[in-house]
Amino acid sequence: MTFERVASETAWEGRIASVRVDRFRYDDGEEADREIVAHPGAVAIVAHDGERLFLVRQPREAVGEQALLELPAGKLDEEGEEPLETAKRELSEEIGKGARTWEQLTSFYTSPGFADEECHVYLATDLYDEQTEAEDTERIEIVEAPLADLDDVIAGCRDSKTLVGLLWFRAYLLG
Amino acid sequence: MTFERVASETAWEGRIASVRVDRFRYDDGEEADREIVAHPGAVAIVAHDGERLFLVRQPREAVGEQALLELPAGKLDEEGEEPLETAKRELSEEIGKGARTWEQLTSFYTSPGFADEECHVYLATDLYDEQTEAEDTERIEIVEAPLADLDDVIAGCRDSKTLVGLLWFRAYLLG
Repeated sequence: MTFERVASETAWEGRIASVRVDRFRYDDGEEADREIVAHPGAVAIVAHDGERLFLVRQPREAVGEQALLELPAGKLDEEGEEPLETAKRELSEEIGKGARTWEQLTSFYTSPGFADEECHVYLATDLYDEQTEAEDTERIEIVEAPLADLDDVIAGCRDSKTLVGLLWFRAYLLG
Repeated sequence: MTFERVASETAWEGRIASVRVDRFRYDDGEEADREIVAHPGAVAIVAHDGERLFLVRQPREAVGEQALLELPAGKLDEEGEEPLETAKRELSEEIGKGARTWEQLTSFYTSPGFADEECHVYLATDLYDEQTEAEDTERIEIVEAPLADLDDVIAGCRDSKTLVGLLWFRAYLLG
């Protein structure tokens, strides 16, 4: 069960994402076209100080949600920046925190049937104040949630990276 | 912090997904364009018989993975079919099982920053044999994983719906 890409054509190019139609050949000789949404990838951060989780609430126009509760996160849209560096920058820009301890929890594809977006999830602890100014954070509200309320946060969560990060944290890291 | 959509234009239309560029007006008067990938949505099923989880392994051309381990799942691509009906159909087509007990675990957006895809996750138990033929399952391999190996499965998993479903199951349903 293997395939190789034998052709690729750009169907649409946007500011962030683009769409390709790629042709694949399988080891049984069959060929098929696949529509693929290309995305630079993203990072998300489970950040806590032992008592509180630091989350964000923001409008998500694509899904018609006026205020979705999420992990601090961001796109890998800076050329040459490693995912961990992006995570450190986003935590500082969105939450106003730095972290002395970083650990990668997991990486996953948000929707591997049709999109190549990969999301890297980190745990950030030993936090300190560190605000970096950014242009696109004016509609982001910081939400502090007690760790004791983790199950309520998870129950109300509608976002893949936030569910994966918080459920992973609950499964393997919550003392 | 509210917005309304004031314009919408189709940028690309594919067989499954499409791309719109929508214009939004915020309550502070500002306006902005957003590129949005439209997708019909999906279902995924955590199916087990008390001893084994039933998973699938399949090629995922979009992310260059020859064999990704996932929950049985499918797109909401049948006009007028409710998500639970799609889940029942997919379980039968991909795994060859029906289930007497169904429970919705959660629903989430795979990537709400730029795509509208919503995924509904179900738990299916009290399984019985029921194979429905389908056209697009020839590259799907059924994988039976002992429930005792759940943490190993989660550790090796790279797919959002599978991570959300299995971590949710581990958190709230595993006896």
